[in-house]
Amino acid sequence: MKLLTYKSAALGRVTAGISFDGERVYRLEELGFSPQTGALAFIRELGCDFGRICQPEGPGEALSQVELLAPIPHPANNVICIGLNYRDHVAESNRAGIVEPPKTDASYFTKHVNQAVAPGKDIDGHFDICDSLDYEAELAVVIGRDAYHVSAEEAGDYIFGFSAANDVTARHLQQGRGQWFFGKSLDGFFPMGPWIVTRDELGAAPALPIRCTVNGELRQNGNTGDLIHSVAEIIADLSAGITLRAGTILSTGTPSGVGMGFDPPRFLKPGDRVRCEIEGIGVLENGVK
Amino acid sequence: MKLLTYKSAALGRVTAGISFDGERVYRLEELGFSPQTGALAFIRELGCDFGRICQPEGPGEALSQVELLAPIPHPANNVICIGLNYRDHVAESNRAGIVEPPKTDASYFTKHVNQAVAPGKDIDGHFDICDSLDYEAELAVVIGRDAYHVSAEEAGDYIFGFSAANDVTARHLQQGRGQWFFGKSLDGFFPMGPWIVTRDELGAAPALPIRCTVNGELRQNGNTGDLIHSVAEIIADLSAGITLRAGTILSTGTPSGVGMGFDPPRFLKPGDRVRCEIEGIGVLENGVK
Repeated sequence: MKLLTYKSAALGRVTAGISFDGERVYRLEELGFSPQTGALAFIRELGCDFGRICQPEGPGEALSQVELLAPIPHPANNVICIGLNYRDHVAESNRAGIVEPPKTDASYFTKHVNQAVAPGKDIDGHFDICDSLDYEAELAVVIGRDAYHVSAEEAGDYIFGFSAANDVTARHLQQGRGQWFFGKSLDGFFPMGPWIVTRDELGAAPALPIRCTVNGELRQNGNTGDLIHSVAEIIADLSAGITLRAGTILSTGTPSGVGMGFDPPRFLKPGDRVRCEIEGIGVLENGVK
Repeated sequence: MKLLTYKSAALGRVTAGISFDGERVYRLEELGFSPQTGALAFIRELGCDFGRICQPEGPGEALSQVELLAPIPHPANNVICIGLNYRDHVAESNRAGIVEPPKTDASYFTKHVNQAVAPGKDIDGHFDICDSLDYEAELAVVIGRDAYHVSAEEAGDYIFGFSAANDVTARHLQQGRGQWFFGKSLDGFFPMGPWIVTRDELGAAPALPIRCTVNGELRQNGNTGDLIHSVAEIIADLSAGITLRAGTILSTGTPSGVGMGFDPPRFLKPGDRVRCEIEGIGVLENGVK
């Protein structure tokens, strides 16, 4: 099933709901939850007990008719990102001057996300302070149960589901500040969507084609099965010291083909259209303003 | 005035309150706020309108009799930290192998804080995965009004107040992972307190002696007036791209004298007592377990 946050035409307001077939969407209220339950509260209430959710009677609403928001519009904590997690992207990053110390362990940084950007909405390029706006199509993982001291073998049980995300980056701020946080965290630098596909549909380690196009031109073309550090390893590694609360979002890194990897670099500019797609999850397309 | 979160003996539960004289504390309810208003909600509701708050009639409770929690027990986002922000600490960090690219701009990273550690409570050393537990006494700044595109000149108006914090760090995880997030973010790595002193008492750029002792031995001895990047510059810099929402916590860096700065290093071990003090704010003391 798909968990989505959307503006319901029938209701005239933002709500969260479930689509079982990708055609119709049912408000959480129609599934027996309180009308106030948003996507984050739903995840925390459900845990990963997907079997509890059954398709109700009634027509619901046509998914094509609703206006999507990011599935978790206001993440409860910063999004935790894994740096340099595809081999070909490590190589292009090194060529572009991003050199991390050699290591076998994963490197993590975070994105400050006051509000995740909805599918279809524009990315604010902050061109007053950013001369090197870049895209990074990524597989996002949503934690479904509080995870602490979880082994890689058990980690799958703690995954609620998966979404697509764009780890938008101001390269000069990423590279010029030592730590990456600032260049990754400007307002609107985390488009996410179009929804969360639950783990019971995709498995805990989905190997899915992931692509990014800019104005229709293919830039990134990878597979989420090629992560250096798998989702299970990431959850085990982090949860050895950090309680990952239900609703936490992990963004698992990007394959090669980002703008800074070209010579000369091909950064985003106002009017560009960026389309991140993960087969089996969906399409996240945003303009740049 | 001081904003604190505490367990009220009279009430038998955790609440937030104000102390005007450092002797008595009044629950926010006694000041006309709803009984459910916690410290974070209070900050967001008040903004920086300190003049709204008047000492009520009645005795309140004796501050010495209440059990303090961290003033904001559950920060709304990751704590934003400024790295290498005192010159003498930059030098000791370089000697210890932490080398950041030369730059004039500030470097930021974040701490994942599910729950800030209360004054008096123990710091979990995570000694199963950490062999190099270190302390960093810091001036914490709490934002009082949503700040976006705020100049350094105006920045003071957006500060709610100040507290003491300990930016507890697992050095090998900080140094071994490239990005610092993981080594800074293990559960319980952010003691904060004992309360927030509001800006109307301290001014927007307090120059206060800051010290850290371990088991009574003086280790850090600096002054918050010696920040390389001032609080106002930090707010202006970050808010050029990020909306700093009311309640956001900034931790402004640590002076020299941390454990890794000694040769050989002097890291924390179970049973140690770490005492961070900022004159004019208060004492934050924690054990290590």
